[in-house]
Amino acid sequence: MAIPWAEQFAKRTSAIKSSTIRELLKVTQRPEIISFAGGLPAPELFPTQRFQEICTRVLTENSSAALQYGATEGYTPLRQMIADKLSGMGATLDNVMITAGSQQALDLVGKLLIDPGDRVLVEAPTYLGALQAFTVYGALYVSAPIDEDGLRTDLVEAVLQSHPKFMYVLPNFQNPAGVTLSEGRRHQLVLLSDVYHVPIVEDDPYGELRYEGEPLPSLAAIDQENNRRLDSPFANVIHLGTFSKTLAPGLRLGWIVAAPEVISKLVQLKQGADLHTSTFTQVVAYEVARDGFLERHIDRIRTVYRERRDVMLEALKEFFPAEVTWTRPAGGLFLWATLPEGVDAQELFGLALRENVAFVPGDPFFADADNGRHMRLNFSNADPEHIREGIRRLARAVHSVMERRVSVPA
Amino acid sequence: MAIPWAEQFAKRTSAIKSSTIRELLKVTQRPEIISFAGGLPAPELFPTQRFQEICTRVLTENSSAALQYGATEGYTPLRQMIADKLSGMGATLDNVMITAGSQQALDLVGKLLIDPGDRVLVEAPTYLGALQAFTVYGALYVSAPIDEDGLRTDLVEAVLQSHPKFMYVLPNFQNPAGVTLSEGRRHQLVLLSDVYHVPIVEDDPYGELRYEGEPLPSLAAIDQENNRRLDSPFANVIHLGTFSKTLAPGLRLGWIVAAPEVISKLVQLKQGADLHTSTFTQVVAYEVARDGFLERHIDRIRTVYRERRDVMLEALKEFFPAEVTWTRPAGGLFLWATLPEGVDAQELFGLALRENVAFVPGDPFFADADNGRHMRLNFSNADPEHIREGIRRLARAVHSVMERRVSVPA
Repeated sequence: MAIPWAEQFAKRTSAIKSSTIRELLKVTQRPEIISFAGGLPAPELFPTQRFQEICTRVLTENSSAALQYGATEGYTPLRQMIADKLSGMGATLDNVMITAGSQQALDLVGKLLIDPGDRVLVEAPTYLGALQAFTVYGALYVSAPIDEDGLRTDLVEAVLQSHPKFMYVLPNFQNPAGVTLSEGRRHQLVLLSDVYHVPIVEDDPYGELRYEGEPLPSLAAIDQENNRRLDSPFANVIHLGTFSKTLAPGLRLGWIVAAPEVISKLVQLKQGADLHTSTFTQVVAYEVARDGFLERHIDRIRTVYRERRDVMLEALKEFFPAEVTWTRPAGGLFLWATLPEGVDAQELFGLALRENVAFVPGDPFFADADNGRHMRLNFSNADPEHIREGIRRLARAVHSVMERRVSVPA
Repeated sequence: MAIPWAEQFAKRTSAIKSSTIRELLKVTQRPEIISFAGGLPAPELFPTQRFQEICTRVLTENSSAALQYGATEGYTPLRQMIADKLSGMGATLDNVMITAGSQQALDLVGKLLIDPGDRVLVEAPTYLGALQAFTVYGALYVSAPIDEDGLRTDLVEAVLQSHPKFMYVLPNFQNPAGVTLSEGRRHQLVLLSDVYHVPIVEDDPYGELRYEGEPLPSLAAIDQENNRRLDSPFANVIHLGTFSKTLAPGLRLGWIVAAPEVISKLVQLKQGADLHTSTFTQVVAYEVARDGFLERHIDRIRTVYRERRDVMLEALKEFFPAEVTWTRPAGGLFLWATLPEGVDAQELFGLALRENVAFVPGDPFFADADNGRHMRLNFSNADPEHIREGIRRLARAVHSVMERRVSVPA
C-alpha cells in the first residue's frame, strides 16, 4: 500500500500554488528568447574576483568558524555592519537578524504575525513572493491602489477600517511597478500606522539602486523621527533588506531590522526553521562588503542599470504604440506597462513568445482581481543591445494583438 | 505610540520557547569549560584546503551561475549525486530536493503535514529541533520509549491507536541517545506504517558515521523492497539527510527524499519560505564532494570520532560511579547517560559548570515528561585528552551530587 499523500497534506497547503512566474520562467529560458521576465541581476557585474580573494582568505584564516554552526541571529560583524548602515533608523545590533534572503524574512514575519483569517494590507500590485509567504499562514488581503507616487495613502485610511494585522509596503522602485512612494505619502503612512496601531512591514530590496534624485527617508527612519521620545526605535515598523540585488542573490542573505522583542521572537522561529543562515556565506559577504567595497560596487551597478533603464525607456518610446503607457522608475529592476483596453496581457505573452521575447503578465501581482492589461518588464539582466532588440520584438507582438482586437467585430 | 508587539504575535508563537540548549550553550562557551553540550563536528576535520581549491575553481569557471538565483528544488548535479547515493532506496532525481540543512527539512515537513491539533508519534527521547519545528504548526505528541535497540516497536502499535499524522524516527545513532534501531524492528516499523497508513519521517543525519558493524537498511529502502510492485518508491517514507555532519554544518545543506507528489508540494512551500538554498554553497558542496572525495573524507572522520567515542567510554568506566549507566553508540556524535534515582541532571549541571565541564540535561528531548536523570554527552568536538579530563571533572560533580543525596535525611 502507498500512502495517499495528497490526502495527508495540511489544510494550509491547499491555498498554495506554484508561482505562475516560476512556470513561465522555465519556458523563457530557451536561449533564443530575450527575457524581460525574471528579476535577475546582471551576472557580469558579480564581483567575482573579490569573492575569490575573500573565499581564499576566509578559508585560510577563519575556516573553523566559517564552516561551523553559528548563532541563529547571524554573524555578529555582519549584523553590526547592517546596524551601522541603518543607523539613520536608530538601528543597533539588537535590532538586526540575518535571514536566508528577503524571502525568508517574509516567511518569518508571516509566521510571527498572521493568524489564519487575519487581513494584510498590500499594494495593488505588490510583490507576489510576499503573497506566497503570507498565504500559507492563512492571510486574507485588503489592498489599496498605487500610482506614479506609490501607494495611494489617501485611500489607505478607508482600508484600515477592516483592521488589517499589518501593512506590507515596498516604498522604493516597487516590484512589480517600479514606482516610489513620495516623501509626503511616507509621512502620511507612518502617521496612519501610529494612529491605527497597524504596524508596517517595509520591504526595501532595491533602495540602494537609485539612478536619479535624492534618496528618501525610509518608513523606519520617519517612524524613529516621530517617536524620538521612546526608548527604542522601530516602534511601528519592521524593515527588510537584502544583499541579493547588490552583492549576489545566490548567497541568499537578507536581514530584518525591528524592535528587540520582535527580533527575539523571530530568532526563536528561525531556530526551528533552519537553525541559522549559512555561516560561510555570511562571513564571506561581510568580508567582501567591508572597507567600502560594497558602496563602490553599488556605484558601478547603478551606472550600468541606469543605462539599461534608459535604453528600455527609449526603445519603448520608439517602438511601442501610443496607447500603451509605462512607469518611469527612478531605480530598481522593473518597469510596468499598461496595455490599452481590450488587450489581454496573457494573449500578448503567447504572441511575444513566438517573437522570442518574454515578460511577466501582471495578474499574479494582485491580491484581488486585475484588469489583465499589465506587464512587468525587467531591465537589469539583458545588455543594451538585447534590450533594444527585445522591445522591438515585443512591440511587434503588441501591434499584432492590437490589430486582432480591432479586427474582432464589436 | 509604539505597537505593543507581543500582543500582535500569532497564536502559533505562544508554544515556542527558545531552546534551553541554546541558552545553555551560551554559558558553556567560556574557554575554560570542556563542553560535551553542543553537537558540533570537529572543526579541525573540515576539508579546508579542498574548499579553497573548489571555491577558486567555481568562481573562475562558473560564477555567473553560482552567484545567481537558482531553482527551488536545488542544483541539479547535487540532487543527482544524492539520488545516486540513495539508489538503494530507488531514489531518482524527481525524488530529491535540497534544503537549508535538515532543520529546514523538518520545518517544511511540518508545514506540509501538520494541521493544528494533529498528533506526531516521536521517540522518547527525540531530537528537540524536530519538536521545535513541528510545534509551531500546532503539533501535539504521542511517544514510545527507546532502549539499546532503538524505538520499542512492540509498544508502537498501541500508540498508533491515537491516529498520529506521522511517525518521526531517527534510526541511526539517534540524537540524543546514540542508539540504533535494530534490523528486525526496522521491518516491523515499516510494516506498521503500511498497515496503519501512518507515514514515517526518517531523519538520518548520522547514518554515514558508523564506527563498527555493518550498515542496516534504511526505513526507506525496506519500504521500497516491500512495495516493489508499485510504480514509484517512497510509498510510506519521507527520508531526510544532511551534509552537516560529513562536510560542514556552516554550509546549511540537507535534503528531502520522498514521493514526487510530496516533493512537488514541498517545492511550492520552499519557494515561499526562501526561494531556494544558496546556489553558491550547493555548487561548492557538489564540487567538493564529487569524485569520491566525500567517501574518503568520511572514512577519515570515522577514524577520529571512533577514537573519541572509545576514549569517552573508557573514561566513563574509569571515573564514573557504578550506579550511572550509559549507552554504547555504534556511530554518531552522542551518548546518553542515566543517573541513579534521586539524582537530578539539572542540579548536576550546576555543579559540573563549577568543575568547568558541561553537558545537556535530558529533559528537553522528551515530548512528555522525563524522569530528570538523563544527560547527553557529545564526543565529536573535543580531542581525546580533553574528553578524558572532561569526564574526570564530570565524575567529580557526579560524586558530589550523589553524596548530597545520601546526606539528606530520609
